[in-house]
Amino acid sequence: MMRKIKVAIAGYGNLGRGVQAALAQQDDMELFGVFSRRALDETQVGAKCFALDDAAQYRDQVDVMIVCGGSAQDLPQQVPQLAQWFNTVDSFDTHAKIPEYFAAVDQVAQAAGTVAVISIGWDPGLFSLNRLLGEAVLPQGKTYTFWGKGVSQGHSDAIRRVAGVKAGVQYTLPDEAAIAAVRRGDNPELNMYASHRRECFVVAEEGADRAQIERDISTMPAYFVGYDTTVHFIDEETLRREHAGMPHGGLVLRSGISGKDTHQVMEYGLKLESNPEFTASVLVAYARAAWVMKNMQLRGAKTLFDIAPAWLSPKSGEVLRKELL
Amino acid sequence: MMRKIKVAIAGYGNLGRGVQAALAQQDDMELFGVFSRRALDETQVGAKCFALDDAAQYRDQVDVMIVCGGSAQDLPQQVPQLAQWFNTVDSFDTHAKIPEYFAAVDQVAQAAGTVAVISIGWDPGLFSLNRLLGEAVLPQGKTYTFWGKGVSQGHSDAIRRVAGVKAGVQYTLPDEAAIAAVRRGDNPELNMYASHRRECFVVAEEGADRAQIERDISTMPAYFVGYDTTVHFIDEETLRREHAGMPHGGLVLRSGISGKDTHQVMEYGLKLESNPEFTASVLVAYARAAWVMKNMQLRGAKTLFDIAPAWLSPKSGEVLRKELL
Repeated sequence: MMRKIKVAIAGYGNLGRGVQAALAQQDDMELFGVFSRRALDETQVGAKCFALDDAAQYRDQVDVMIVCGGSAQDLPQQVPQLAQWFNTVDSFDTHAKIPEYFAAVDQVAQAAGTVAVISIGWDPGLFSLNRLLGEAVLPQGKTYTFWGKGVSQGHSDAIRRVAGVKAGVQYTLPDEAAIAAVRRGDNPELNMYASHRRECFVVAEEGADRAQIERDISTMPAYFVGYDTTVHFIDEETLRREHAGMPHGGLVLRSGISGKDTHQVMEYGLKLESNPEFTASVLVAYARAAWVMKNMQLRGAKTLFDIAPAWLSPKSGEVLRKELL
Repeated sequence: MMRKIKVAIAGYGNLGRGVQAALAQQDDMELFGVFSRRALDETQVGAKCFALDDAAQYRDQVDVMIVCGGSAQDLPQQVPQLAQWFNTVDSFDTHAKIPEYFAAVDQVAQAAGTVAVISIGWDPGLFSLNRLLGEAVLPQGKTYTFWGKGVSQGHSDAIRRVAGVKAGVQYTLPDEAAIAAVRRGDNPELNMYASHRRECFVVAEEGADRAQIERDISTMPAYFVGYDTTVHFIDEETLRREHAGMPHGGLVLRSGISGKDTHQVMEYGLKLESNPEFTASVLVAYARAAWVMKNMQLRGAKTLFDIAPAWLSPKSGEVLRKELL
């Protein structure tokens, strides 16, 4: 029996708690502890807690550090630092900035001899994998990504910044007619605007101008303008009762042609009751791969494109071939 | 500009023709020629043709040989031979015999320093990949595979062997109610019998006892007994007109629990107008990976579990991260 992989968590929000829960389901891994900038109560956390600033001291006791910060502020600062001492896994998801983030992390990890797996989750993540498979297998075709129905954290934050809004949540919904057209093989020309709509549930402050709130939301640049947006006003109790979850999901479709005019459709879909818990589950599987790669003497930044599926599983190649192939 | 990968085809049935068509869609690959036991007409084939017995002579001119024979007779004999001289890719799909097949091919390829990618296609193949991902990410859960609607070659052959049957085709159909239950998260106990039914379209010989044919089919051990089987009698013209295609497809679902009791569903689906053409398209993408692995100095038998997604794509790591992650 091999010893268990010792995994630590950096950052203890929804994602960090999800990683803790996901680790408890994996027989070949154990939680070393949680690193945080905040002082955490070990009894409440149910694990050893450490100051993030002291992380370097534990470099020889942790096999993989899963870094659970946000992509805007935390990860670009934390991962290049932690990758000096640890093999890391993160969920950096600012698509446009991935090349520069990869370069920054790679430089540190190459020099330190660590493995840093970046941008893991479902998008970027398992959806990216299916976009790659789609075009590799069916080069003549189109790839479609639909998101939702699910809560967009960024858009929810945006509506909460509107004057007169006390609280609120935003759901991204894919256009079912567009999905049906893609599945049929119509290969429609779609953009993000035409294929998604946005539904907002808003608690207004007392006396606020609701028509104005509605206008402010639906014309907000970058977030809502151009979308079919609906705003529902609800009370706080309803928000708490019906909109506290963080469901999400979506689809990646590849609609392609083989041979003369043979139509082939590949479809990947996720239906998630909790977005952060699922992302955490994916991070944990890739933490195993990080440790496998470290033991293969690999080093540097890696994405899920660089990772063979077998490295994600606790099973041997022999068992995988027998049971799952 | 790198030179193109030179790919040869061994065996020129439906699958071999599909590989030829798939190669024509890939800008970084070219068809070296077709190896066959039969004498082929080069004008008809549209490519150089060679005797399979002469293959060894061309070992230095071919980068990857895609072996397109059947799993019962051809591949267990041909691949261990061809892997002495070539990097190979095949679609060996007799699930129960994969371990011994892997061992036989691995021994040859290790000794010869070639890469032999086995059991590529969609099941085994892309479906296997999704079974692995499902249990690696959501270890607490159940995996379901549904096949169809599609033509099963093995079952179609079986009904054609029944006395009084002139021609026929068999469709495997998944049980839609079972699929709905899995998607809902009911985690039903299913077996192959309960979750699939079989529909046969049969042309009877003149004067044949149709009731007897129906009985012989639906009680046939290993193929039909235990299944909900329907037999339709049709004329030859209808068979030709409506049942000449080779559509197939199916679903792999992972229904799992994260956290306390959060339900998460991962779903992968294929809807294929032509089973052999799609399998061929997958083989061609993995031929690229075989050549990448050869150039990495890897050797021996490999399955798709051993292959990083990036090796399937003609794009560089940098472009993949920018465009697809």
